Amino acid sequence: MAELAGLLEPSALSAQVRGWLKEDVPSFDYGGAVVGDGIETAVLYAKSKGILAGKPFFQAVFDELNCEIEWRAGASDGQDLVGPLPIPLAEVKGPVRKILLGERLALNALARCSGIATRSSGLVNIAKQTGWKGIIAGTRKTTPGFRLVEKYGLLAGNADTHRMDLSSMVMLKDNHIVSCGSIRKAVEKAKTVAGFAVKIEVECSSVEDAKEVSFVFHRAEFAPTSFKPDPFPFVHGRQLRQVRTS
Amino acid sequence: MAELAGLLEPSALSAQVRGWLKEDVPSFDYGGAVVGDGIETAVLYAKSKGILAGKPFFQAVFDELNCEIEWRAGASDGQDLVGPLPIPLAEVKGPVRKILLGERLALNALARCSGIATRSSGLVNIAKQTGWKGIIAGTRKTTPGFRLVEKYGLLAGNADTHRMDLSSMVMLKDNHIVSCGSIRKAVEKAKTVAGFAVKIEVECSSVEDAKEVSFVFHRAEFAPTSFKPDPFPFVHGRQLRQVRTS
Amino acid sequence: MAELAGLLEPSALSAQVRGWLKEDVPSFDYGGAVVGDGIETAVLYAKSKGILAGKPFFQAVFDELNCEIEWRAGASDGQDLVGPLPIPLAEVKGPVRKILLGERLALNALARCSGIATRSSGLVNIAKQTGWKGIIAGTRKTTPGFRLVEKYGLLAGNADTHRMDLSSMVMLKDNHIVSCGSIRKAVEKAKTVAGFAVKIEVECSSVEDAKEVSFVFHRAEFAPTSFKPDPFPFVHGRQLRQVRTS
Amino acid sequence: MAELAGLLEPSALSAQVRGWLKEDVPSFDYGGAVVGDGIETAVLYAKSKGILAGKPFFQAVFDELNCEIEWRAGASDGQDLVGPLPIPLAEVKGPVRKILLGERLALNALARCSGIATRSSGLVNIAKQTGWKGIIAGTRKTTPGFRLVEKYGLLAGNADTHRMDLSSMVMLKDNHIVSCGSIRKAVEKAKTVAGFAVKIEVECSSVEDAKEVSFVFHRAEFAPTSFKPDPFPFVHGRQLRQVRTS
Amino acid sequence: MAELAGLLEPSALSAQVRGWLKEDVPSFDYGGAVVGDGIETAVLYAKSKGILAGKPFFQAVFDELNCEIEWRAGASDGQDLVGPLPIPLAEVKGPVRKILLGERLALNALARCSGIATRSSGLVNIAKQTGWKGIIAGTRKTTPGFRLVEKYGLLAGNADTHRMDLSSMVMLKDNHIVSCGSIRKAVEKAKTVAGFAVKIEVECSSVEDAKEVSFVFHRAEFAPTSFKPDPFPFVHGRQLRQVRTS
Amino acid sequence: MAELAGLLEPSALSAQVRGWLKEDVPSFDYGGAVVGDGIETAVLYAKSKGILAGKPFFQAVFDELNCEIEWRAGASDGQDLVGPLPIPLAEVKGPVRKILLGERLALNALARCSGIATRSSGLVNIAKQTGWKGIIAGTRKTTPGFRLVEKYGLLAGNADTHRMDLSSMVMLKDNHIVSCGSIRKAVEKAKTVAGFAVKIEVECSSVEDAKEVSFVFHRAEFAPTSFKPDPFPFVHGRQLRQVRTS
Repeated sequence: MAELAGLLEPSALSAQVRGWLKEDVPSFDYGGAVVGDGIETAVLYAKSKGILAGKPFFQAVFDELNCEIEWRAGASDGQDLVGPLPIPLAEVKGPVRKILLGERLALNALARCSGIATRSSGLVNIAKQTGWKGIIAGTRKTTPGFRLVEKYGLLAGNADTHRMDLSSMVMLKDNHIVSCGSIRKAVEKAKTVAGFAVKIEVECSSVEDAKEVSFVFHRAEFAPTSFKPDPFPFVHGRQLRQVRTS
Repeated sequence: MAELAGLLEPSALSAQVRGWLKEDVPSFDYGGAVVGDGIETAVLYAKSKGILAGKPFFQAVFDELNCEIEWRAGASDGQDLVGPLPIPLAEVKGPVRKILLGERLALNALARCSGIATRSSGLVNIAKQTGWKGIIAGTRKTTPGFRLVEKYGLLAGNADTHRMDLSSMVMLKDNHIVSCGSIRKAVEKAKTVAGFAVKIEVECSSVEDAKEVSFVFHRAEFAPTSFKPDPFPFVHGRQLRQVRTS
Repeated sequence: MAELAGLLEPSALSAQVRGWLKEDVPSFDYGGAVVGDGIETAVLYAKSKGILAGKPFFQAVFDELNCEIEWRAGASDGQDLVGPLPIPLAEVKGPVRKILLGERLALNALARCSGIATRSSGLVNIAKQTGWKGIIAGTRKTTPGFRLVEKYGLLAGNADTHRMDLSSMVMLKDNHIVSCGSIRKAVEKAKTVAGFAVKIEVECSSVEDAKEVSFVFHRAEFAPTSFKPDPFPFVHGRQLRQVRTS
Repeated sequence: MAELAGLLEPSALSAQVRGWLKEDVPSFDYGGAVVGDGIETAVLYAKSKGILAGKPFFQAVFDELNCEIEWRAGASDGQDLVGPLPIPLAEVKGPVRKILLGERLALNALARCSGIATRSSGLVNIAKQTGWKGIIAGTRKTTPGFRLVEKYGLLAGNADTHRMDLSSMVMLKDNHIVSCGSIRKAVEKAKTVAGFAVKIEVECSSVEDAKEVSFVFHRAEFAPTSFKPDPFPFVHGRQLRQVRTS
Repeated sequence: MAELAGLLEPSALSAQVRGWLKEDVPSFDYGGAVVGDGIETAVLYAKSKGILAGKPFFQAVFDELNCEIEWRAGASDGQDLVGPLPIPLAEVKGPVRKILLGERLALNALARCSGIATRSSGLVNIAKQTGWKGIIAGTRKTTPGFRLVEKYGLLAGNADTHRMDLSSMVMLKDNHIVSCGSIRKAVEKAKTVAGFAVKIEVECSSVEDAKEVSFVFHRAEFAPTSFKPDPFPFVHGRQLRQVRTS
Repeated sequence: MAELAGLLEPSALSAQVRGWLKEDVPSFDYGGAVVGDGIETAVLYAKSKGILAGKPFFQAVFDELNCEIEWRAGASDGQDLVGPLPIPLAEVKGPVRKILLGERLALNALARCSGIATRSSGLVNIAKQTGWKGIIAGTRKTTPGFRLVEKYGLLAGNADTHRMDLSSMVMLKDNHIVSCGSIRKAVEKAKTVAGFAVKIEVECSSVEDAKEVSFVFHRAEFAPTSFKPDPFPFVHGRQLRQVRTS
């Protein structure tokens, strides 16, 4: 499996953490002045089971604050945490005011990311157990400004991120098609700007639509038999209506 | 009731929206090039019941994109949406590519904010119905970078935001007290930096602690009778252990 | 053809222009104080032939400065400028200090963008005339911080942008393959993170490599006959060594 | 006493210093190219007496430039500098161009901060000597963008910062009260948004106003005897007109 | 006289104001929610005499908040305010919460700028009255992050800004000269990077130094008679020790 | 010769690199996840001859990514690369994903900078060989956002940067003069804001203009004999029309 942490550009990670810290400490950190700079060690525990995810974000918070983290063996993103709770995951060492300064923020990021990984993994497992061949994927319905962490959690849970943003895949929906006049015209416009590097996906609402898409892209007939009922319509209803292509 | 939208500084709102748009369109908006700039009108519907919240964020997205919004009467933050679904809330008018560009983002903000308002309002109502006198308040366990929207949702749901960040209230917990040696010392340190403008809150784990806090602040005895069992320990366990003061 | 201007997210465009202006006026604009705010009209002329490109960047500079632009009919991105020089393209109206403030910057962006469009178009035309079936595409060898303008110019010249950045396509080169041990392993790792939304491209240095890639992706044999000599090796040598897939 | 440096969030400090450096070196540092990177040591001297304040800002400038500072014993924020002048406070060691690059900026911050601390301390001492029981506090009349340093200086001089910004305390003045119709209505509105975590302060222009405020907050009568003449009207005239509450 | 407002690049002005507002409202503007959006008009008065300066900064604050300002005739930067106090300068019209939001900030900028203009003008007038021929100029001893406003105030007071920053003039002091070995070597190094567009200034501590500088730049002898005692050593002692050149 | 790297303010360099990295990795670095963090060493080769320039930008990219660079002796900015190609210039050591992450960006900066240095140096040498006494200088016709690198390249090629931006020199062209009414008035306005620290340059279109400029600045007659034909009109036509002054 790919090392998920490798997905993250270090200086962007640092910039994001700086923004988060600014949100939590717009001016003075009164508590910090109270506790001072004595060196302490804090232990990170998992208090419930699930998939761990978000280590690089947790790490980046304390890197920014010059604290050191020692991760326990087995505490890796995508890992299913088992065994008696609480499970120690890491030790954070540094000036006590900096530990307290980063604690809440680092936990907020780690907990959200792990929660998404856990839920995603659960859905992926349901699909596997029933033999469904579709893909469990996320959407762009993410928390504004926090997408990177959420998409990372999806990957840690073995789900697919689908497109990250409007720049990394073209998805032609009914609005695009209507405004262009036909599927063919919409796809042709999309190809002139997206070129061969960016995928184009077309949402179809009928077998006729799917046939047209198939013809536009592959100059081949489309086998309508693939439109069998989706066994998990509640998971992600859109797969039914989409014909993907490259 | 106060006009919640008045809480938001306009240029900060705009800056936040710009950051969100950047996340969703890091380079090209391929779909935008497909649909073009024909003028269209889109309607915002509520598809489920609950408390509406987040109008200024929704509005700011489309302000940034130079689209116009006409809100329906009754579509105000804090409003409990009733009546047959779907409920039309607003009309957005502008170039179709800009409507599609802002649509997902504006919905993401509005939906999260309304969801928090709805859940908060539900808890507040439970408390009211049982006659509980405590306060339903949020914590700093918010999504990094998205706190403003989430705290706004709390207010729309009639809950209390508690402190916004480490700069707007001092909260002395066990760690602060241990590192200072005693409650008294911790409070005295806090007072030298927080002055008379920022509240200081001390978490107490015993009646003895509460008495000491009471004495430090008010030079008066504390009536331990107020330590009766909290009727809603599941809502926010911390109230039980806190003595607030100014 | 798609409306290229629709590719650009308005607030990102504005943010970029603000950065450019900051570069050109870090503190005082002495010349601006000399000329004052009398209203003037300036005319934009094309002084040499070629493909026009970059109107939205030129426009955004003057939008930021509250000047008005009236574009001449025919002055559209991708247009091959013909007729006797100089060719009037637009009129800019506003306070004279703001026209002078934005003039150099707006020209810098427009001229670079048009230059790239003109050169790209020239290469595309050579390819067409000789019947070459390959794609003329850009690379990531762009000016740091200025990629959006340069890729836009490529599109205006009918060339392909190839991938915009490391986030919008996966390209596995020799380094990636060596570090993973084999093409198969590299592709499998890439698939776990890129999912079905992001294209994966593998650079092959031999027919054997190409066969393996073909098998990994399509479970089908690859026809080596497609490895005929590239008629335009000087244009973009890499096409020869690549097998693209989705 | 609390360790004032603990008030400052490290990455915000660094971000502020980067902004200051950008202001002082928008493009090239010509002098830096002249002097080069030979390692030198510079000594920081106090040339006049007063209260030292602003060490973390001075330090942050040279941290950003990778120079090392060794502070002399006794050179701590809030310290009253005594003894024969000039008083050595610190040694800065690093490449000569970086010392010269940061020198002016670091001195600007330290000198302003120390000046404010010295003036504040002087006023606090006058109040003490005359037995005045009021609080010497700052206002929001600070230099735009530089408030953190100025408020820090106030604390080093044993004065009170009063509210840091519009988000950390509510202050209801005549304008707020007039626009709401009455003190009671203004306070009630404020309470719905400020909750129990943020203090509310009401400016009163009469004993009647003060009584109303007292009743709104405490449901208790207010003793008008506290409206005796302020012995130091020149220090901060507003104390006379304010009733603070929590 | 030049129109000082023309010195300021509009989008930089807006960016600076946004940063200032962010400082004053890091999260919620509680007072804003209390007063609401009723339209009001506020009047700006000068309460003491002096030179007015900083109108564009005052204006930019309210532009950012969509309030309108009508300036009185005669209220121009550099104007010596005369007549009976208070002197009305402008009317600001807009939603009351936005007026209160910008009021303190706009006054902070205007007051500081006018103060600097008034003090500068006073010194310039003293020099004129005594017939001194030197130049009254500022230094880089400005408030970090606020230099633009302060230098603007200097100009409104008819003083000289001297160099704005390390990028806009080269000033060779003893440190530079010592590190290079001689005045000649320091100047030669400076010339290779500063070229013919940026002025080079050399601080001299003796007539010999001045002669060398003169020779390096002009290949001409320097008349030491110009080293007469400076009549205003208290204003700006450095003039005595400097030989300026281009 | 001055050490060019000394021209660059370290934290601005870092900020610029962060922006460039953000452009190249807006969300995930898929390739990075594929290759992982094994330590590797890459060698930087010059593949063509010319002047090397831009080392600090190349270095800053890898500093940001925590990779180490060892530069070969002789690989200094301004150096004319000679000897058999390819010429090894440096070794970069670090985690393979970080080397690949920075590689393209670092090369883009270094290659553009060296290209400009090489072309500049070529022009300077032509001028020298023919005995021309003028100055080969750049303009403000630079790539928006990339000026620092391009001006640095000019210096490495022994050319002059001319003015860096609108804040570091005043250049009065026909537009300025027309809007003021005369050369004299334009210069007088410029002097009131630019003071003695910033150079003023006036473009003249006739000997009469040049005489007036000379008189305004020096109160001396101008010798028209210096208006001999420019031997290199193709290099920089403007020298002919300019009278520079300080």
